[in-house]
Amino acid sequence: MKKIMNGPEKIVDQMLQGFAFARADKVGYDPLHRVLYQKTFDPKSVPIISGGGSGHEPGHLGYVGEGMLAAAVHGDVFVPPSAQQVLAAIRQMDQGKGVLLIIKNFVADLATFLSAEVQARAEGRDVAHVIVNDDVSVESDASFEKRRRGVAGAVLVHKIIGAAAKEGYSLEALQEIGEQVVKNLATLGVALTHADLPERREPQFLLEEGEVYFGVGIHGEQGYRKEKLVSSELLAVELVNKLKSLYRWDKNDQYAVLINGLGGTPLIEQYVFANDVRRLLAIENLHVSFVKVGTQLTSLNMKGISLTMLKICDEQWVKWLYAPVDVAHWA
Amino acid sequence: MKKIMNGPEKIVDQMLQGFAFARADKVGYDPLHRVLYQKTFDPKSVPIISGGGSGHEPGHLGYVGEGMLAAAVHGDVFVPPSAQQVLAAIRQMDQGKGVLLIIKNFVADLATFLSAEVQARAEGRDVAHVIVNDDVSVESDASFEKRRRGVAGAVLVHKIIGAAAKEGYSLEALQEIGEQVVKNLATLGVALTHADLPERREPQFLLEEGEVYFGVGIHGEQGYRKEKLVSSELLAVELVNKLKSLYRWDKNDQYAVLINGLGGTPLIEQYVFANDVRRLLAIENLHVSFVKVGTQLTSLNMKGISLTMLKICDEQWVKWLYAPVDVAHWA
Repeated sequence: MKKIMNGPEKIVDQMLQGFAFARADKVGYDPLHRVLYQKTFDPKSVPIISGGGSGHEPGHLGYVGEGMLAAAVHGDVFVPPSAQQVLAAIRQMDQGKGVLLIIKNFVADLATFLSAEVQARAEGRDVAHVIVNDDVSVESDASFEKRRRGVAGAVLVHKIIGAAAKEGYSLEALQEIGEQVVKNLATLGVALTHADLPERREPQFLLEEGEVYFGVGIHGEQGYRKEKLVSSELLAVELVNKLKSLYRWDKNDQYAVLINGLGGTPLIEQYVFANDVRRLLAIENLHVSFVKVGTQLTSLNMKGISLTMLKICDEQWVKWLYAPVDVAHWA
Repeated sequence: MKKIMNGPEKIVDQMLQGFAFARADKVGYDPLHRVLYQKTFDPKSVPIISGGGSGHEPGHLGYVGEGMLAAAVHGDVFVPPSAQQVLAAIRQMDQGKGVLLIIKNFVADLATFLSAEVQARAEGRDVAHVIVNDDVSVESDASFEKRRRGVAGAVLVHKIIGAAAKEGYSLEALQEIGEQVVKNLATLGVALTHADLPERREPQFLLEEGEVYFGVGIHGEQGYRKEKLVSSELLAVELVNKLKSLYRWDKNDQYAVLINGLGGTPLIEQYVFANDVRRLLAIENLHVSFVKVGTQLTSLNMKGISLTMLKICDEQWVKWLYAPVDVAHWA
């Protein structure tokens, strides 16, 4: 597939420069460490830092701003940043209130973020983390390499913790909120195509004409079942039923819902799918108190969609989901 | 290309229902007329109404909300709504301050919106309109059918007039602001693929492997030149040079810039292109006071990008571009 770029080796740095240009009024850019950060960060708040490999746009750059991330650190396409990069972001944002890292549950991401945390603590900094592992397509007894991954639900974690941080919660309290949210968060995705990497690396799976793949990861990891695409409704039935068997929900339970395009899915199709999810959740008599539909965490231009459900255990979570933000790509 | 839908004949209504579900807190839905409207509209403001064919998401539904559109009216994919639908939206929102229609310059859109305006006036309503014709890929002496079309620049018109309307400007003043903005607005696009229609209608053009097409319209109308895709930089050179020859700008002239993905273009590529535009405009010594990068007005899943430039003639335009809004897909 043709790409608008100037060579794969330049794509990440040029993207970050382009972003820094577009948000020059609010966002600073450290090109050496590929860190985008809030220029005028409220020193009364705990800074929330996230990041990971590039290729998931608008994650992570699109969430830097008031009410969400204080900074985001970017690696190469589908490759996490180094510990040195993460440490640079911690040093940039730490103003004495501590720093909270949000890490998606991939082995390589954990290694670099946790190593940066250790080094920052050795410098006397107060650093904690929340690990997002919302992908429930992987069996719970899966191997270390295949354990529950962090996918689109991470965006809801950014939103909730970011809003709470703005209200002045402590590092300890924010970590506790994050852990509660993650415990009640689950995501399942379905791919209609593979991700198309800028370097023409081989995709991790191929689909035949008319085929879909349930349970794929955001780096193109293989899913749990292939079948023929029949309709949006049947995709929704599969994903809602799987989440139902996980949550074992009761009538009137309260949920927030995120329907996320994986990159190459037009909004018209995302909203058709949202309508199918709406009908299924209405049959279940669930109370849906927040809905977000959009292209929020992607696998480059993969065509597909994911459904994230967050069981609301605290009314404040809903308030924080609705709280206004000033970022490039939440809206 | 596989689509997440339940049949092409249902795609628009199900999308609108899905949208109404996602924004149930703020947006009302009239399914008979396919109108989405602000539930609690400030009666001191003039309502701004736009719309057109579907398939351009997030236009137009994504712009309904405080600070932008009071209502949006939706036709079938790439087919404008009827005059009756537009009239229903006018009746829904008119609270005595008049109503302003924003119309994209296509023959069929003009016919229905202007017919609705005539009928609304016959009912004693004060209705005016602004016609957006920012697409400069068509020669100025082109035929009626081929005259300057309304494309992505319409989103900036919504944003500026919507913010001004919120400040309480009169219908007459808003129309005047809109006309001034349109006079100083120009857009050029380039396609890497054609749009893929849900009904498998024949695309209006086909591209060979590695080919791009400059000047295509948002309904897949043919462009002005095909050539091989070399790099993002060369695409930016072509589009910036064409806009330069049109504007004949001077050093230190002030511009707002919109870089718009046409549907199938990942943000990583949009920001790479934004960086190339940044470098070219810096060489020209232009003062860029507002930049927006994102998937804002599309041609379904067409892969491609457009560059919109607005010459700033009034500092208030910049303020209105930055003004906060509460809509689903401007951020």
